[in-house]
Amino acid sequence: MNSSSEKKNNLEQIVSLAKRRGFIFQSSELYGGINGFWDYGPLGSELKRNVREVWWRYIVHGREDIVGLDAAIIMNPKIWEASGHLGGFSDPMVDCKICKKRYRADQLCEEQGSQLIGDGKRWKMPENVSCSNCGSKDLTEPRSFNLMFKTFVGPVEDDSAVAYLRPETAQAIFAQFLNILPTSRKSVPFGVAQSGKSFRNEINPRNFTFRSREFEQMEIEFFIRPDEAVELICGKVTTLADNPDLEGEPQDDWGWEVWHRYWVEQRFAWFRTIGLPADSLVERVHSKNELAHYAKTCVDIEYAFPFGIQELEGIAARGNFDLTQHQKFSSRSMAVMDDKLRIAVSEMNDAAKEAFRQKTVANWVQDGKSEEEATAFCNLLFEGRYIPHVVEPSLGTDRLVLALICNAFDEEEITDAKGKKEVRTVLRFHPSVAPVKVAVFPLVKNRPELYDKARDVFKKLNRYWNCFWDESGAIGRRYRRQDEIGTPFCITVDFDTLEDDTVTVRMRDSMEQTRVPVSDLRDFLEEAMEL
Amino acid sequence: MNSSSEKKNNLEQIVSLAKRRGFIFQSSELYGGINGFWDYGPLGSELKRNVREVWWRYIVHGREDIVGLDAAIIMNPKIWEASGHLGGFSDPMVDCKICKKRYRADQLCEEQGSQLIGDGKRWKMPENVSCSNCGSKDLTEPRSFNLMFKTFVGPVEDDSAVAYLRPETAQAIFAQFLNILPTSRKSVPFGVAQSGKSFRNEINPRNFTFRSREFEQMEIEFFIRPDEAVELICGKVTTLADNPDLEGEPQDDWGWEVWHRYWVEQRFAWFRTIGLPADSLVERVHSKNELAHYAKTCVDIEYAFPFGIQELEGIAARGNFDLTQHQKFSSRSMAVMDDKLRIAVSEMNDAAKEAFRQKTVANWVQDGKSEEEATAFCNLLFEGRYIPHVVEPSLGTDRLVLALICNAFDEEEITDAKGKKEVRTVLRFHPSVAPVKVAVFPLVKNRPELYDKARDVFKKLNRYWNCFWDESGAIGRRYRRQDEIGTPFCITVDFDTLEDDTVTVRMRDSMEQTRVPVSDLRDFLEEAMEL
Repeated sequence: MNSSSEKKNNLEQIVSLAKRRGFIFQSSELYGGINGFWDYGPLGSELKRNVREVWWRYIVHGREDIVGLDAAIIMNPKIWEASGHLGGFSDPMVDCKICKKRYRADQLCEEQGSQLIGDGKRWKMPENVSCSNCGSKDLTEPRSFNLMFKTFVGPVEDDSAVAYLRPETAQAIFAQFLNILPTSRKSVPFGVAQSGKSFRNEINPRNFTFRSREFEQMEIEFFIRPDEAVELICGKVTTLADNPDLEGEPQDDWGWEVWHRYWVEQRFAWFRTIGLPADSLVERVHSKNELAHYAKTCVDIEYAFPFGIQELEGIAARGNFDLTQHQKFSSRSMAVMDDKLRIAVSEMNDAAKEAFRQKTVANWVQDGKSEEEATAFCNLLFEGRYIPHVVEPSLGTDRLVLALICNAFDEEEITDAKGKKEVRTVLRFHPSVAPVKVAVFPLVKNRPELYDKARDVFKKLNRYWNCFWDESGAIGRRYRRQDEIGTPFCITVDFDTLEDDTVTVRMRDSMEQTRVPVSDLRDFLEEAMEL
Repeated sequence: MNSSSEKKNNLEQIVSLAKRRGFIFQSSELYGGINGFWDYGPLGSELKRNVREVWWRYIVHGREDIVGLDAAIIMNPKIWEASGHLGGFSDPMVDCKICKKRYRADQLCEEQGSQLIGDGKRWKMPENVSCSNCGSKDLTEPRSFNLMFKTFVGPVEDDSAVAYLRPETAQAIFAQFLNILPTSRKSVPFGVAQSGKSFRNEINPRNFTFRSREFEQMEIEFFIRPDEAVELICGKVTTLADNPDLEGEPQDDWGWEVWHRYWVEQRFAWFRTIGLPADSLVERVHSKNELAHYAKTCVDIEYAFPFGIQELEGIAARGNFDLTQHQKFSSRSMAVMDDKLRIAVSEMNDAAKEAFRQKTVANWVQDGKSEEEATAFCNLLFEGRYIPHVVEPSLGTDRLVLALICNAFDEEEITDAKGKKEVRTVLRFHPSVAPVKVAVFPLVKNRPELYDKARDVFKKLNRYWNCFWDESGAIGRRYRRQDEIGTPFCITVDFDTLEDDTVTVRMRDSMEQTRVPVSDLRDFLEEAMEL
């Protein structure tokens, strides 16, 4: 991207452009809006569709080891009991007893340079914190507020009818694991991907679409062998210390640590393919005390938004916590049979098994687990079975859309043929996500043979890409309109076209123009779109 | 489609196939399910994606007069007040006072050969109807049950926090009309399309995915001029009696009746392009007493499901009811300026205007409207303005997916080369919706040069289409596996390929095979997919 001007990515400019150009509107604006909800307009809906599409094609169609799922938003509430969301998915909330204003307790403390006291389940306010509305220190004790939206399914509004809007798409993947495994004909290692809406009743939605109450996610659960199974199959477990080749094909001897790193690299690589430059992204490794007790590690890929460096995607190594919980709550075994493991253990003698068991028990006990658990796990392994572990790359679609708009937005000073300076507003979207791929213009509209030829070109290209027809105003003005919505290619049909069947293709970023025969247009554009 | 066998489309067979092949699973099956919710598995999610994609490309990308929208599911509840859903979107519900069982009152009556008494707002049970569980006639009075799922937005569960999951996607189009109009640079006639989830708390979900509580819709609001504006612009209003050409470009002189018919024809044509034969579809015109008071007409396009002939899509002419309601509830004018109208009225003299006003008032008064309304409408027209009317084609995505599976399912008796008869199960999906487009097989897997060549072909084609790689079992068995999931083309790389760089392409429906040079494969398949 050859922008010479400095990017001025302040949030207000982005919000204003997003509305003015039909990318993002406040939901229900006609009625004063509704806090934490947003609508995607004509261009925004195309941009978001493209983002979903390139992700699905890369992750599901581009890989033979991942299949898709499209599950319901409302599920049996037992799922949220098993996952821990019903018990633990909450924020601390505090009220001012005088003016009745409500706050997220941790945020109120932070705003006043203080910190909420507590262990993540029970909290206490520090003494110096006061209501930022009326100044009173007469605040309630902080209490848990569950972030799941609640509703009632069926005609009776009682406890047995309570259900929740899913706060994440991932959980359905675990809940449908036993159906997906046999129908997909896949075996571990393999993954399941899902894209769709999730809902969190944020006490304080903010930063435009970044933290909203209704949002979209694109999540993968990638199921891998426990390290002990890898060891039995391969005789060793490759770790990052072995400096494995993460750009080649995944290997059987990879342990969880390598798989996790592989996915972090994969996700960084994908962000680059859709036009987020490496230097706009930041990797943040979660500290030990941020991690849930079952999580082995978590890495966030963050983007430098106008309001700060914030998470786009989290890649967590979650062990086998989720499947184990669902096994416990459903009484259905989540163990899979692994043919390579079955063959490997069939070749072990009893002494080798016993030695392996002892080593495993010692390791597990050192990690604070019980000997019984470790023995049961070994016995399952000796049958060729285990509950798979997962690596979970979890991406916020709306956050990515916002990052793409922020990254694309540019104002550049250019000098026209007459030496006049002007500011060009341009959205430098990667062609794969640009809402409109190609604009087609007849040079003039009052010459039927030229007009009809331009229509032919438009119709031909519109079969393959979302194209835009514009016949009004000077060509320069038509270019500017397309620049502002990020269209990478503009095609002008002029009088020369009628002579030699070539057209002018003008590139958004370089503003360079080149003549291309109409018969080569599809190939030319297809190649140019890959950048 | 050359099926010789009779189609046995009973619902149980479809449900069983859908589960076995990973098309559709019961939501939360692990925990006993949840009534009225369904998940789409690896193949089902691809099928549904394709359906959404071909619709969007046909409706939004394929037409220059329609733009897209992707709005939030939870909106400001004022929208549902204005639309009438809060007051009127309900079913009658009745309880047995003895055994406490709950029924949809109209269904309970119908099951017992009787009919619920009432006007759509207040109801009374006929005397002979009894509880079908315990036989008691001691039933409550029927009362309204609103079908919208209710939730609370924000941390306080009080009346001011109540919000609803949208029961249709259409309403957001009206609510965002004032934002879409200027940003899309469209003018009437034009449309807005939206695809997404909707929720209805059905008392009695049934017929597999046909009537579920969470479902997807693909809806269009196509805004047209009121007939009076057409008359002022064109001097006449074309009606169906004029036998207009509905297959050409829409014309300025079309009245609402022609526009409505045009959309019915358009939708029928589209169903044919995705493989639903004309004779599987039924057109049903709503009777006068089925119509809402504001609706001018409504036509359903129905499909012959195993459980009966039922609606896929409804095409309603809704007048300007919705925009008028939102104007009333928001106090924002929904009138648009129409340049052609403005020019037309600027050329009228006062006498012509007065004659037009008198005629219009007379017509409106005859329709039961007031003179004041008619005069205000004429005054607005004379400024070049009006509130647009709409034609609303509203399609149920899940219903269409189910129809496509039912239509595709076939079992045919075939005779192999050795004269042995067998039953071939085949899903005859149109290529545009088939979950997998192309399968690629190496004839054998233990010859590296052949294997590598097949991988090259697979990778080349997988850039353009969702492809499937299968290297295990006899070729005939691999064909059968693809037949069962509806893959239209299978490609085998064999020893001849290594000599002459051609492959065998085998067609699912005819089972014919043809040799195609690798270099021509993309063009060959592209053409074959259009059927």
